Amino acid sequence: MDEYRVELETLQELLYAEGKRKLLIVLQAMDTAGKDSTIRHVFQGVDPLGVKVASFKSPTAAELAHDYLWRVHHHVPGAGEIAIFNRSHYEDMLITRVNGWVDVAECKRRYRQINDFEKMLAETGTTILKFYLHISKDEQKARLEARRDTPEKQWKFLPSDLAVRAQWDDYMKAYEAALSANSTAHAPWHVIPANSKLARNLMISHLLIDALKKLKMRYPDPAKGVADTEIE
Amino acid sequence: MDEYRVELETLQELLYAEGKRKLLIVLQAMDTAGKDSTIRHVFQGVDPLGVKVASFKSPTAAELAHDYLWRVHHHVPGAGEIAIFNRSHYEDMLITRVNGWVDVAECKRRYRQINDFEKMLAETGTTILKFYLHISKDEQKARLEARRDTPEKQWKFLPSDLAVRAQWDDYMKAYEAALSANSTAHAPWHVIPANSKLARNLMISHLLIDALKKLKMRYPDPAKGVADTEIE
Repeated sequence: MDEYRVELETLQELLYAEGKRKLLIVLQAMDTAGKDSTIRHVFQGVDPLGVKVASFKSPTAAELAHDYLWRVHHHVPGAGEIAIFNRSHYEDMLITRVNGWVDVAECKRRYRQINDFEKMLAETGTTILKFYLHISKDEQKARLEARRDTPEKQWKFLPSDLAVRAQWDDYMKAYEAALSANSTAHAPWHVIPANSKLARNLMISHLLIDALKKLKMRYPDPAKGVADTEIE
Repeated sequence: MDEYRVELETLQELLYAEGKRKLLIVLQAMDTAGKDSTIRHVFQGVDPLGVKVASFKSPTAAELAHDYLWRVHHHVPGAGEIAIFNRSHYEDMLITRVNGWVDVAECKRRYRQINDFEKMLAETGTTILKFYLHISKDEQKARLEARRDTPEKQWKFLPSDLAVRAQWDDYMKAYEAALSANSTAHAPWHVIPANSKLARNLMISHLLIDALKKLKMRYPDPAKGVADTEIE
């Protein structure tokens, strides 16, 4: 991980200096699968100046008054920036679907709308990487028990976690549908085995670094005449 | 620095977990004094999930159409967050004053408006730390020359840097006036000697950690009945 961190730091500096490309990382997962922990471990070491994390929770009244892409659009990366979506617009095809808040027809409309939205982002200079962190139901049990039994972690344990866990199979189906409908050339989904935290971090770091290297970025040219400028 | 980084990381985790306090850090300085570098060195290691950097550049047309506190207000920290202002509303009493875009009466009005604004933030749970990174004019010369002569840094060298350098004395006067008018108990200014990068980073880390420790934060209580919850 240390080597990857140094490499990622260097590539982020270059992305920021070049100021042209945009990198959007989308993280989705069941509870305890390690979205927060991935952000901490993969991006610790990267300059906070160039990385923005947007965590999407239950929508507010103002957010619900708009289309479901409105709130995420506000947080997409600008030129030279990395944006990380901790949950995302995909929730609007997961929790909504599992609970029957939207029907199949609406879900299909959203697959298309999301593909169109992500395509527009890609066409306007955004590299999009989407990671689904997959843990097994048994692993989630073990992690929830650890959360329950560790004093500094107990505050993270919410009764609602168990309600979602009880819908595990429905969530898996909803994820499968969304991942297959929305894995496109311009915005692929990567399924990351996440029972092992280290393997998860290594795999995501590797994919990120690989994607950044492919951009063949370079430092911008200096302004004309810089080399000969006298400083008084 | 390594020890400070670990300590800052732990305190930020606690701030985030507690989810009550807000920390606002304001960085102001002449060009090359190390605002970006401070952010990178002091906050590298802190979870990107809990830190937001807002860099304020020349205001856009939409920003100019509003009062000067409008754009910064949008970026103040939420509960459990750290926000770093890379430049800030103080520019509206510095560059504006040096160039005569606002008169003395308007400047005095802004001193009061800014004190009122910061007081409101403090009263609503925000700890405010303002750092002015001070380098000497000779040190700036050396750093601009290094920027000019280093291929990977040349792109950062802009002719406009020299125009601002030519106004050095006027900027020092404007800073003195702003720092003395706006150093309050609820939002003190710290003048950080910044010719030495290491001393600068150590001093800022120390002040930050000290301020965070004074908050006497604690992990939130778990939800009722968590310890006995059975996980199926």
